[in-house]
Parts: sequence; C-alpha cells; structure tokens
Amino acid sequence: MAFFEKALTHSSYANEHNLQSNERLEFLGDSVLSIAVSDYLYRHMRKINEGDLSKLRAGVVCEQSLAAAAKRISLDKMIKLGRGEELTGGRTRPSIISDAYEAVIAAVYLDGGMDAAFKWVIDHLRGDIEKAISGRGLTDYKTELQELVQKNYLGDIRYILIGEEGRAHLKKFTVKAVLNNEDIGRGEGKNKKEAEQHAAKTALEALRKRNENL
Amino acid sequence: MAFFEKALTHSSYANEHNLQSNERLEFLGDSVLSIAVSDYLYRHMRKINEGDLSKLRAGVVCEQSLAAAAKRISLDKMIKLGRGEELTGGRTRPSIISDAYEAVIAAVYLDGGMDAAFKWVIDHLRGDIEKAISGRGLTDYKTELQELVQKNYLGDIRYILIGEEGRAHLKKFTVKAVLNNEDIGRGEGKNKKEAEQHAAKTALEALRKRNENL
Repeated sequence: MAFFEKALTHSSYANEHNLQSNERLEFLGDSVLSIAVSDYLYRHMRKINEGDLSKLRAGVVCEQSLAAAAKRISLDKMIKLGRGEELTGGRTRPSIISDAYEAVIAAVYLDGGMDAAFKWVIDHLRGDIEKAISGRGLTDYKTELQELVQKNYLGDIRYILIGEEGRAHLKKFTVKAVLNNEDIGRGEGKNKKEAEQHAAKTALEALRKRNENL
Repeated sequence: MAFFEKALTHSSYANEHNLQSNERLEFLGDSVLSIAVSDYLYRHMRKINEGDLSKLRAGVVCEQSLAAAAKRISLDKMIKLGRGEELTGGRTRPSIISDAYEAVIAAVYLDGGMDAAFKWVIDHLRGDIEKAISGRGLTDYKTELQELVQKNYLGDIRYILIGEEGRAHLKKFTVKAVLNNEDIGRGEGKNKKEAEQHAAKTALEALRKRNENL
C-alpha cells in the first residue's frame, strides 16, 4: 500500500479490512512536523527566546490548527473510516483529522525526503505560523523598520520617550519614532519596549503609505 | 560565535558575559533529535505499533539517557557555566548537561545539515536505542530468524507448542523451534508469542554457533 493511501487509513477501517492503519505514520509525521516548524521559527524569529519559540510551536502544531489545515485541503473527506466510526461522527473529530494530517506529512517525507516535507509543511502552515507570531505580539517591527530604512538609505531612526503616566504596574509609556528630524509614528505601551514596537509599526505604515514600493 | 561554542554556553555564563546562551539551540536540537530517533525506530522496528514506538522514543530522548550520552563524550566538562551555577554543582545536573547535548545536536544540524545530524545522533545513541528495544522485549527474534533462514536457504522454520502449565494468569508456555525436522531451540513464556520469541532467540544462537558467518 502506498504511503499516502496508508496515511488516510484510520485504524477503524484498517481493522475492518485487515489493513495497516496510519498510526505508525502518525508517530513519524509528528516529529517531521515538529522539526519543520522549529527550523522555520528558529531561522525567522532571531530575537525571541526559547520560551516564546516553544509557545509558538505549540500553537501551530496543536490538534485544532492541524485539523483546520487538513480541512483546507479537504483531507477530512478522504480519510477511510470504519463503519461504526463513520456513524458516530468520527469524520468531524479533530483528533482523527489531525492524526491523518500528521500521517500525510510522514508520507511526503518518506516519498520525497526531508526537503520536500519541509516545503510541504511550510507551504500549508505558513499562515498559521504568521498568525501565531502576530497573535503573541512577537512581530519585531523595530527590526523591520530598521531594515527598511537602511535598505532604502532613508537616514537614521531614533525612538524618543515623550510620555510616562500612571504608577507601578499600571504605567503607560508613549514613544515617538523619529526619522532624521521628522516624527513619523507614535506608540503606546505598558513598557518602553512595547511602546517602541508600536511606534515602529505606525512608522512602517506611514512610510509605506508615502511610497508603495517600500 | 560559532554554533558549537554557543551550544556549550549555559545561560548563567551568557548572562555574566553578555553572550547568547544555548537555549534557542536547545529548542531546535530537541526536534532534530526527535526526528532522527523517530526515523530510525520507524525504519528498524517494522512490526511494532505506534504506542510502543512512542515509548521507545521517550526512553531514548529522556534527560537521563541524554545526560549519560553527553558524559560519554565529556561534554559535561566543556560546558561554560556562570560562577554561581558552578559553585552549586550545576556541572553535574542532568538537565543542564542534556540541554547542552540537544544544543550540540542543533549545532551539528545547522553546520552540516540533516543527514549529518541523523548520523551524529544515531552514532551516539544507537546503543541506547538498542538497549531500550531489548529492555522492552521488543526485539523481534522470530523475524530475524526467518530472514536468516531464508537468506541462507536453510529450509523451513516452524514453532511447535510442547508444554502448557499453570492456570489463568499464571500460565507458562513452552515452544520449540524446528528447522526442517530438527529441534534447534526451545523457549518459555507467559504466552505463546513470548515463548516463540524466546525459542527463536535460542535457535539464532545455536545456528550462529554452528556457523559464524550467519
């Protein structure tokens, strides 16, 4: 039986038809998925610590996000289920769908090697990864702005603290981003770092509004 | 800083000297280790289910076994520790040693690619993997005997139940392995399958004693 076919064979169907199920492939696919996502995060998120890397990875390789990714390519409709499992709604169960998805990743790996599997995983999950990154507020707008400014020879970027309100754990900081001598963005945050990130985000939007090619 | 050097830099030393620690590498190395061991187990243990595969993997990639593997190559002596950590015995702490070991695996991966990392992991952990396999009684002697017999055109192997003692959960089965018409091994076990495995093991030893080239 080809790997891809086996990857879609749930144990309930395998038992009824005396076939091999997708469970061993799922075991392998789980690790392939993990290294593909870890490698992507390690190379793309150079400034964040291993705690945040782990949280990002956990958010992407969870049952819910894998089941959703599987549905986007209609994998749920292709799974072979046993009769009882079909009758009790197994086809909509996230665990069954995400397990098959991991098994398919193993099939891609066994058929095409690690590079093919990396490409497959990232092609299908890049959106989820990017969503997890922005959802956790880990997009590094300061670095993005710095790179954009340098690449286009726009001058120098500085961040200036222009406001600090509140007390102790309820502080609010306001920062402005200054390009050469021009204010190009403001941001607030519960610490200076967060305020700078928000100022950089506003500045990026402003610069891109002026020049669509940036 | 080279990856290998960074892999040996514990956070306590990194903090004291304003360097990057090995923590991000450890995040990556954990996944590299997992796929290398999973791939090896998937390809070498074709008859066992995903539950046993997972247990085997967990036994190999655990802190204790990684720290022991690290010590075999004196990695514990090469870790850069901060002063406080050194004074409080950090150099002998399994978590610190195994984390550095995973970070080194990531360094091998980043420097040499996945094939180099696979080779490194298996070269260093094959003994642990084999020990985990035999420790769980998962060595498949029947398959090994069958393959040896076929490859060398030795004839046919059969297993015959020759004894069954005791009652209910305390049964003892005795099986003999017969090559053509010759008894070549006996084994006992708490079920027929286990007795056959033990008979196959004895048979393998007997055949190899007769002919060292088998």
